[in-house]
Amino acid sequence: MAEAITARSEDFSKWYIDIVRKAKLADYSPVRGSMIIRPNGYAIWENMQSELDRMFKETGHENAYFPLLIPESFLAREAAHVEGFAKECAIVTHSRLQVNEAGNGVEPAPDSRLEENLVIRPTSETIIWDSFSNWIQSWRDLPILLNQWGNVVRWEMRTRLFLRTSEFLWQEGHTAHATREEAVAETKQMLDVYATFAEEYMALPVIKGVKTPSERFAGAVDTYCIEALMQDGKALQAGTSHFLGQNFAKAFDCQFQNKNNELEYVWATSWGVSTRLVGALVMAHSDDQGLVVPPRLAPTQVVIVPIYRSEEDRQNVLTRSTEIKESLGSAGVRVKLDDREQYRPGWKFNEYELQGVPLRIAIGPRDLANNSVELARRDTRDKSVVSLDGITELIVGELETMQTRMFESAVSFRTSMTSDANDQAEFVDILESRGGFIRAHWDGTDETEALVKEQTGATIRCVPIGEPMEEGVDPFSGKPSAQKVIYAKAY
Amino acid sequence: MAEAITARSEDFSKWYIDIVRKAKLADYSPVRGSMIIRPNGYAIWENMQSELDRMFKETGHENAYFPLLIPESFLAREAAHVEGFAKECAIVTHSRLQVNEAGNGVEPAPDSRLEENLVIRPTSETIIWDSFSNWIQSWRDLPILLNQWGNVVRWEMRTRLFLRTSEFLWQEGHTAHATREEAVAETKQMLDVYATFAEEYMALPVIKGVKTPSERFAGAVDTYCIEALMQDGKALQAGTSHFLGQNFAKAFDCQFQNKNNELEYVWATSWGVSTRLVGALVMAHSDDQGLVVPPRLAPTQVVIVPIYRSEEDRQNVLTRSTEIKESLGSAGVRVKLDDREQYRPGWKFNEYELQGVPLRIAIGPRDLANNSVELARRDTRDKSVVSLDGITELIVGELETMQTRMFESAVSFRTSMTSDANDQAEFVDILESRGGFIRAHWDGTDETEALVKEQTGATIRCVPIGEPMEEGVDPFSGKPSAQKVIYAKAY
Repeated sequence: MAEAITARSEDFSKWYIDIVRKAKLADYSPVRGSMIIRPNGYAIWENMQSELDRMFKETGHENAYFPLLIPESFLAREAAHVEGFAKECAIVTHSRLQVNEAGNGVEPAPDSRLEENLVIRPTSETIIWDSFSNWIQSWRDLPILLNQWGNVVRWEMRTRLFLRTSEFLWQEGHTAHATREEAVAETKQMLDVYATFAEEYMALPVIKGVKTPSERFAGAVDTYCIEALMQDGKALQAGTSHFLGQNFAKAFDCQFQNKNNELEYVWATSWGVSTRLVGALVMAHSDDQGLVVPPRLAPTQVVIVPIYRSEEDRQNVLTRSTEIKESLGSAGVRVKLDDREQYRPGWKFNEYELQGVPLRIAIGPRDLANNSVELARRDTRDKSVVSLDGITELIVGELETMQTRMFESAVSFRTSMTSDANDQAEFVDILESRGGFIRAHWDGTDETEALVKEQTGATIRCVPIGEPMEEGVDPFSGKPSAQKVIYAKAY
Repeated sequence: MAEAITARSEDFSKWYIDIVRKAKLADYSPVRGSMIIRPNGYAIWENMQSELDRMFKETGHENAYFPLLIPESFLAREAAHVEGFAKECAIVTHSRLQVNEAGNGVEPAPDSRLEENLVIRPTSETIIWDSFSNWIQSWRDLPILLNQWGNVVRWEMRTRLFLRTSEFLWQEGHTAHATREEAVAETKQMLDVYATFAEEYMALPVIKGVKTPSERFAGAVDTYCIEALMQDGKALQAGTSHFLGQNFAKAFDCQFQNKNNELEYVWATSWGVSTRLVGALVMAHSDDQGLVVPPRLAPTQVVIVPIYRSEEDRQNVLTRSTEIKESLGSAGVRVKLDDREQYRPGWKFNEYELQGVPLRIAIGPRDLANNSVELARRDTRDKSVVSLDGITELIVGELETMQTRMFESAVSFRTSMTSDANDQAEFVDILESRGGFIRAHWDGTDETEALVKEQTGATIRCVPIGEPMEEGVDPFSGKPSAQKVIYAKAY
């Protein structure tokens, strides 16, 4: 129950895990590094998928599915790519189990050793560009705009439910274009789609930017990202969109005949978001009472809890509750009537608070007599008595208001947690006293970036897009800088 | 184009592969046994998923996600289960690649050898029942009604696109119950869901039945199935629903306290359908001109092809085409207007015929003058001139009619291909002359079942549900039989 949740102020990490486990979003699995996504967590992911999938299709993308298993030699084709992913691969070497000699277990049958080892995809650029090289001959075959929903595995030593797991669910977009300009435009378009999704659905304001060279995706020319701020003042990368140049086309010999009948390498992008977003949602909005979910992504938006003692009251309350439920359902609201007899109303109140249902309606005989119900808002935890007349319109409006209120509250928090630092002492002081985003000059070198990380623990989250150029001095190296970048400690 | 498709009468297998590849449903992958599902094929699977997911949720199930990788020792816990699945496993033994000694490739790093090997799930009973044993203590925790959408790997030597691949996409339902009766009822309910889906959406009549002991799922007490007939007279198992008894509860020590405060093992079911259904759809309905898809599952239900020469005609035709498109879209029809300039109308006609779009509207200046369009039906290949007045209602009605017509046509075909065989000669004659379903007596022994398979190539598809018991004599063993069963050669 709610009283068992660790307070944020006491231990933010423990608070986070408490919410994830007690709201039954996810659970640990017996396989180190893997997690079990329980129905409450999966339903949030399904709502995310549904909106993202619609946005991808509206921007012209189609879904496809490529193999889970990739020949190890494919990974090695693109030099930076193998460097980035070889260290964290699940490698399949055999295709059959047999009973072991002791007869008490199983082991891989030696004669089932594969001719070439297979790697469980950590990402699918290689296997997809192998296909693209078969499918693309002419400019007429371009662009190809694909997306894939699936699972990937990247062996992780230090894992945390949703935020970092060896296996995770995600979508990966892969597109092929005739020109650099078109590919860059696609990269930016998908970054905008992610930012819109984060802000309009997750109620999570994000900074759009470009990663520094050291933080680029392995094989990318440029990695664009959206960065969000969690309640503990740490940043979380919520999505990335990569301009891959011609790197994968060259690695997989994918050329096309352009309109001038010349052979040219194809231009590429890839972009992805993952179940990590569920973790971001928890850390951005929840409180010490449990999960808080923005209405647009909430699996259940409204729960109705009937209250009664006598059989006569039961009939009346349930009849009216069902009417409210049906009216809300017709208006497109995801509503649930919890008429279970084995749980008391107080228990249900706690349960739905813990699980983050945005609105709770409590209805008893006295409410019926007054033609009203009690409405409780999960985000503010305000309660009020509202008339049954026009309640459907009121609820629909309140869900939208709550969505906006949650976004505005997250924006205010981020504003209050974004600081400029002009010298090292100020930088360190901000970082240690309250964290958040720090805007500071950077001289553009890997060396200074690494130095700051080592000395302070903060990393450059991104070079923000659309901010004015502003000459200055790097507070760590003393060298000149052309623009401020965004630093933070990060997940 | 269409002329390159092998005729069904010439080589059914080649015809099937031609359709799958030329209609761009799927392609071979560089990983033996795996396939690439292209957008045209994936869109059909998405429509299947969407309807099935709705039906699962309407029957009270929730989606969840369990790990891809399962400790090899888990598989060995249930004796029949490991026997059934150990022979076709992808086994993960290492977690890191390193550059090989020759420096020309990569290899698993020896020091990344896993302590316990992991198997890519061939099915998830073991990992799910491990969790259930943590989640279930009391009858109050039951039932648990879960479904998972995901990928599985079963190493296959002889593969065929969609029908049999090492990796495939599917859903697997897993439920836990307090009583045998409830679990059996769930098993049958999900079989009914599958049968309804096959008949109402895939336009594919199915026989519901029970598998013989030798064909049971590894670890099941009873395996229920739906069996469909393909155009070459071979049967295809389209879905299975398993009553697992207490086998997995015992293997994973999952007990609960019942209402009498006694400890009891939990009762289980599991059930699944896969991307194999896309292959079934192709083999049941398509023709020598290409794919035929029932309207309810067709990614595009109606395509509009504008025809014009002059710029003035172009404007008029496109304006009217857009109006038709918008009207159909508003009526909930999945409609596409193909106004691409680089392809001629004749090319488009062929393309959409090949890809199985149910209805094609062709509209040119003469049609406009007559206030009509040409409507072509993919299933019958009939063409007719229809008035533009009320065209939206006509199209909506025609899509429903086509759905019914395709189902009825498949029922007629199956009826004509279902025979009773009373002796061996008749059995073999039917099987070799035209195939199809054969109703014949069976003495109930594994020996006779194996003998018939060896002698004729036919297998018992199922003991049909709801057919009258009818005493007789097994035509192969001469022993008494209580009921006729359904034999066929099968995929």
